[in-house]
Amino acid sequence: SLARRCHQRSTAMLDVPFLPFCTFLGMLGLLCLAMVGTWCQHWRGGFSLDGSSRTFNWHPVLMVAGLVVLYGAATLVYRIPHTWSGPKLPWKVLHGSLALGAFVLSVLGLAAVFRFHNSQGTPNMYSLHSWMGLGTVLLFSCQWAAGFGAFLLPWAPAWLRALYKPIHVFFGSTILMLSVASCVSGINEKLFFSLKNGTTAYKLLPAEAVFANTLGLLILVFGVLVVGALARPSWKRPDSNSLDSRQVQDALGG
Amino acid sequence: SLARRCHQRSTAMLDVPFLPFCTFLGMLGLLCLAMVGTWCQHWRGGFSLDGSSRTFNWHPVLMVAGLVVLYGAATLVYRIPHTWSGPKLPWKVLHGSLALGAFVLSVLGLAAVFRFHNSQGTPNMYSLHSWMGLGTVLLFSCQWAAGFGAFLLPWAPAWLRALYKPIHVFFGSTILMLSVASCVSGINEKLFFSLKNGTTAYKLLPAEAVFANTLGLLILVFGVLVVGALARPSWKRPDSNSLDSRQVQDALGG
Repeated sequence: SLARRCHQRSTAMLDVPFLPFCTFLGMLGLLCLAMVGTWCQHWRGGFSLDGSSRTFNWHPVLMVAGLVVLYGAATLVYRIPHTWSGPKLPWKVLHGSLALGAFVLSVLGLAAVFRFHNSQGTPNMYSLHSWMGLGTVLLFSCQWAAGFGAFLLPWAPAWLRALYKPIHVFFGSTILMLSVASCVSGINEKLFFSLKNGTTAYKLLPAEAVFANTLGLLILVFGVLVVGALARPSWKRPDSNSLDSRQVQDALGG
Repeated sequence: SLARRCHQRSTAMLDVPFLPFCTFLGMLGLLCLAMVGTWCQHWRGGFSLDGSSRTFNWHPVLMVAGLVVLYGAATLVYRIPHTWSGPKLPWKVLHGSLALGAFVLSVLGLAAVFRFHNSQGTPNMYSLHSWMGLGTVLLFSCQWAAGFGAFLLPWAPAWLRALYKPIHVFFGSTILMLSVASCVSGINEKLFFSLKNGTTAYKLLPAEAVFANTLGLLILVFGVLVVGALARPSWKRPDSNSLDSRQVQDALGG
């Protein structure tokens, strides 16, 4: 019908190819990483392991690297069209490894802020940022362990995999949203702390504030684009609602 | 096949009916509203229009009411199964009216914080929270105007409606995520401000901090559940990728 042709033509106009989009996302992720590193190096005194604020500086860098950029890369593995045919195991290993790398970086990022607080005599875990951030990493640990147990170990029955898969997919996007919200509240909080007694108050919007606010907005854009890419129907594996052949064989006792 | 039966049985186990889920969401939204009101009334001195911090207190209440709870209700209108048959215009009017109400509340919420800053001589629009929050409301204004022009006014051609609809749906979820991230960073920021010179510092985690941190987590849960409900395939209108009959008639010049 005419209406259907209209619809197909219109949605074709919106079709962005996945791989160029991923290249753009990768550049945006690297820009976020470069900016968080520059912020800590240029305005916050650089990096060390001595328990000072230079130890704290590892926290934003590791969190953006792990819980945003590497995590985002891990979530997008199954949107690469090459993963839709052939053996699934290598892609599962890649997805799990990227996620494990993201998890390790985020745990190191937590260690940096705990070490800083403890050496300064500051209490841990009082701000909403800390509650949300630690909650996000805890959810991520459950997600990784459950995904490993259900999809990489060979023992989970097909019905359990089918039951758990939509839950894993839902929490995959949810954890990224929570990560991004944690980053934004953390950058906001850090700027209030750092610029309170500094040369220029946050409210006078010095160059550091403009730079770090821009970083926060770019992290938001990155998160929204990854969550949007994950939700886009035309980028999902065509049979993503049915079981893969290995699971079918398992279910049939093959 | 056995695998398909397994899959259907497993996903049936996860099937939550939409309307009980909405009742739960409604109660959660009301709880968030009651908590933000209680926070401002009990710990922050209540409400007034005199330009003091009691004027500021309208800001969190109006933002949670408008940009989170009422906005969330507006997004879910088309997930009600009753909207899938019969004339669409009444549901469009309901969706647009709820969204307009949410927008008006959020503009009043912005007015409250600008009035407070101006009467205190505090600069506006310097924190990451303010950039993200104002950006969210500006995006929302574009979303409402474009939705009104494309879907409620009768003049948009079918191809334009079909082109714009996925964009409108994408920004619908995106704006809610940004709202929730704005709320969380705002609560975090307000607690650092208010408890700095107060009776008990934020870092000692007084009752107010526990209460408002919990409010922040509940707002996050509300946002995640609404975005998850919007993304759930089985809750979408079955023919949501095709045009409705009115549009088909329009396209055919009927």
